[in-house]
Amino acid sequence: MDSITIKNVIKDLETAIGKRKVVYDADIIEKYSKDETSDLYHYPDIVVRAGATEDVSKTLSICSKYIVPVVARGAGTGVTGGAVPVQGGVVLSLELMNRIIEIDRENMVAVVEPGVITGDLQRAVQKEGMMYPPDPASLDSCSIAGNVAEGAGGPRAVKYGTTKDYIIGLEFVLPNGSIINYGGKIVKNATGYNLSGVLVGSEGTLAVITKIFLRLIPLPSHSLDFLIPFKNIDDAVKNVNKIICSRIIPSTIEFMEEDSIKLVSEFLGGEMPFPDAGAHLLIQVDGNSEEDLLKDLESITACVDTDYEIIVAQSRSQSDRIWKARRSMREAIQEKSPIFLAEDCVVPRSMIAVFLREVKDFLNTRNLSSVMFGHAGDGNVHIDVLKKDIDYVEWKKMLPELKENIYKIAIKHGGTISGEHGIGYIRKDFLSLAVSRDEIDLLRRIKHAFDPDMILNPGKIF
Amino acid sequence: MDSITIKNVIKDLETAIGKRKVVYDADIIEKYSKDETSDLYHYPDIVVRAGATEDVSKTLSICSKYIVPVVARGAGTGVTGGAVPVQGGVVLSLELMNRIIEIDRENMVAVVEPGVITGDLQRAVQKEGMMYPPDPASLDSCSIAGNVAEGAGGPRAVKYGTTKDYIIGLEFVLPNGSIINYGGKIVKNATGYNLSGVLVGSEGTLAVITKIFLRLIPLPSHSLDFLIPFKNIDDAVKNVNKIICSRIIPSTIEFMEEDSIKLVSEFLGGEMPFPDAGAHLLIQVDGNSEEDLLKDLESITACVDTDYEIIVAQSRSQSDRIWKARRSMREAIQEKSPIFLAEDCVVPRSMIAVFLREVKDFLNTRNLSSVMFGHAGDGNVHIDVLKKDIDYVEWKKMLPELKENIYKIAIKHGGTISGEHGIGYIRKDFLSLAVSRDEIDLLRRIKHAFDPDMILNPGKIF
Repeated sequence: MDSITIKNVIKDLETAIGKRKVVYDADIIEKYSKDETSDLYHYPDIVVRAGATEDVSKTLSICSKYIVPVVARGAGTGVTGGAVPVQGGVVLSLELMNRIIEIDRENMVAVVEPGVITGDLQRAVQKEGMMYPPDPASLDSCSIAGNVAEGAGGPRAVKYGTTKDYIIGLEFVLPNGSIINYGGKIVKNATGYNLSGVLVGSEGTLAVITKIFLRLIPLPSHSLDFLIPFKNIDDAVKNVNKIICSRIIPSTIEFMEEDSIKLVSEFLGGEMPFPDAGAHLLIQVDGNSEEDLLKDLESITACVDTDYEIIVAQSRSQSDRIWKARRSMREAIQEKSPIFLAEDCVVPRSMIAVFLREVKDFLNTRNLSSVMFGHAGDGNVHIDVLKKDIDYVEWKKMLPELKENIYKIAIKHGGTISGEHGIGYIRKDFLSLAVSRDEIDLLRRIKHAFDPDMILNPGKIF
Repeated sequence: MDSITIKNVIKDLETAIGKRKVVYDADIIEKYSKDETSDLYHYPDIVVRAGATEDVSKTLSICSKYIVPVVARGAGTGVTGGAVPVQGGVVLSLELMNRIIEIDRENMVAVVEPGVITGDLQRAVQKEGMMYPPDPASLDSCSIAGNVAEGAGGPRAVKYGTTKDYIIGLEFVLPNGSIINYGGKIVKNATGYNLSGVLVGSEGTLAVITKIFLRLIPLPSHSLDFLIPFKNIDDAVKNVNKIICSRIIPSTIEFMEEDSIKLVSEFLGGEMPFPDAGAHLLIQVDGNSEEDLLKDLESITACVDTDYEIIVAQSRSQSDRIWKARRSMREAIQEKSPIFLAEDCVVPRSMIAVFLREVKDFLNTRNLSSVMFGHAGDGNVHIDVLKKDIDYVEWKKMLPELKENIYKIAIKHGGTISGEHGIGYIRKDFLSLAVSRDEIDLLRRIKHAFDPDMILNPGKIF
């Protein structure tokens, strides 16, 4: 944006929504120059801190008038650069619109503003005996509208699905400022196109979400955690299928392969059970009685085939111990190598082991360390490649080829680039590996239907 | 279509896909002039019976070249005129593309062609110990791609969701003939926009679906049915909430109110239990052991408050007896009045009783008989208004005002026009009651993104 446009936009914004909500001091807007993507920064020219839907609408109208980029932002916890204003312009922060408007126990619906922290929502609905299942790792810092924008998942997706399975209504604002109300406290809707289906996972490129209606479910009263070690990842994956075929869908089935076990065991200094196993499965089952869960455990142990002992958590603290390794993964990685490549490919569940092995083989040819872990129940694999002491410039040069190879292996096995983190900025050059030219053309036309002037989050996805 | 265009299109089609697949004899194409919408007919000019995706692609290219309407059709069981070629042109029948391509037990995915009958798919996956939950009433005659096009639901939606919750991949053809493959055997996907989310419920106006990847779940081994009679519908609805708040989500919670009970009891000639009750709830719970289900039953009976006895089915034949009334509803209505208005509004679950009462009061002011029944668990209410001996011309004149009033009552209570049957042809004049001008504009732009020449199923939705 040239300085005259910036001045005009600021003047119009201040007149429309008040000076207090329009910020352009370098030290304040620094925070809005990045999300949690490693190594990506870009300053916006202006930050708007919206307090209400009307502020969003007015801001978008003004940005449309001047045709300047506008990037909606929740808590900025994304890891693919979705909230980074790579072309400058306006960051439209929704962090102050953080009210839980209503928890409707009778209809089992939560109505929330976009900036509500997902973990806060979960705790609030739990108090009422209900559950909002999606549980991205950034639960305690991410915003619910960010979850909608990214289609966030989490460990519980295997049983409960992802964010898209819970949205029953949205209020959103188009770039021209018009406010649209779709759905509401109704769990079925065959009236016009499925607009929440279009918007979920659209990474802030189609509209700005200002209110969300979420379906809730009854909170299971009990859960049980256990850890099953295996000789190797192939055995672990085979057993995941056996478990699911035994008619039980655990609420989570997380896995860690050998290198991730080693890394985190080193980080935790011996606190970890079975640090010598070739793979761990971390399983949680939930239900409405201890009895039920013990029955599930029995069925699972009956069908699982491993040389190791199964550790069943008998208490909350034992649960925490079992989960500690998985939860410490990111920290352990960061200690080892503050800069790393984080991928979240998805493949058919049965192909996890083959996929991991081929990726590992490829990375070995480059002498690169990596750890792999993730959601065995739904084929969503996290692959973190560690930079360690590789020269920074060298590393940056390597990245495109690394990514391309990993993605190609996923695609070859019927998978795709991203299961939950999205394409954002850092993967957009690779979209055409997974998505045909015709499909990208279609995505662009959908983009155009919502945002004809291309002002919303430009430079993302394609 | 003028006769020269018809001739040219036929010639091009026959050259491209073979004479055998192109039909235009009046007696054969008569079948394609209607679906199950009462009182709606329009002959197509040409019918194409596609045998493969390439046929679909070539047909669409030719229709694009001549800019002629093309209406994709599955089994033609829709009830809002979605498959009726109201502007003539080509009906593209997918009934011959009816192969179950694969049932992948390991990944719990079914891959099917569009013309597969939903009930056939359910039986095939059941044999493998799995379940495809969506269960529209037309199960044994409707096609799976029709379910996708309409976003079909069914009684089990309260626990298992609707068609949209099971689509993980689609092959579809755009009007310009390009074939797009979205998703696959992957249950998570954050790579580009959620195209299956856009297409589900789009009523054949955006693309023609040629292959579907469906997520399956483990088949519960046991189920238990019971019938709870109540004094009136208010009591029934209150108790639905109590049941769900007791942490149990039954696989179905169907209701019938007084007039529907009376009508069907008369039809069945005394075979029906509790014909004098003011409302029935028909509940099914499912799970993996009889024990579990008896526990569910116990929890439910403990929280339910009714003066009547609860009938628990002890055998398959008792189950059938309990369900017979609900399943005979349509037949009973048709016997009483072959012509009737069928609505499927949706309201927040807590508003069902208020909604029904207001609709009943309104219909009483017009001296009209009606029956109401449906899915109490998800607020999706079927309202059938009987023509009986009202003069046909008079009846046709009344319809718009009847519909408008019913829709307005639903909307007033936070609901909308259709929960599962869609807008199609017969409701399109009323879309603007539920959907704002800005939203309709957006829907039109989405339509344009897929179908710039507006050849796909013209005259539907808006």
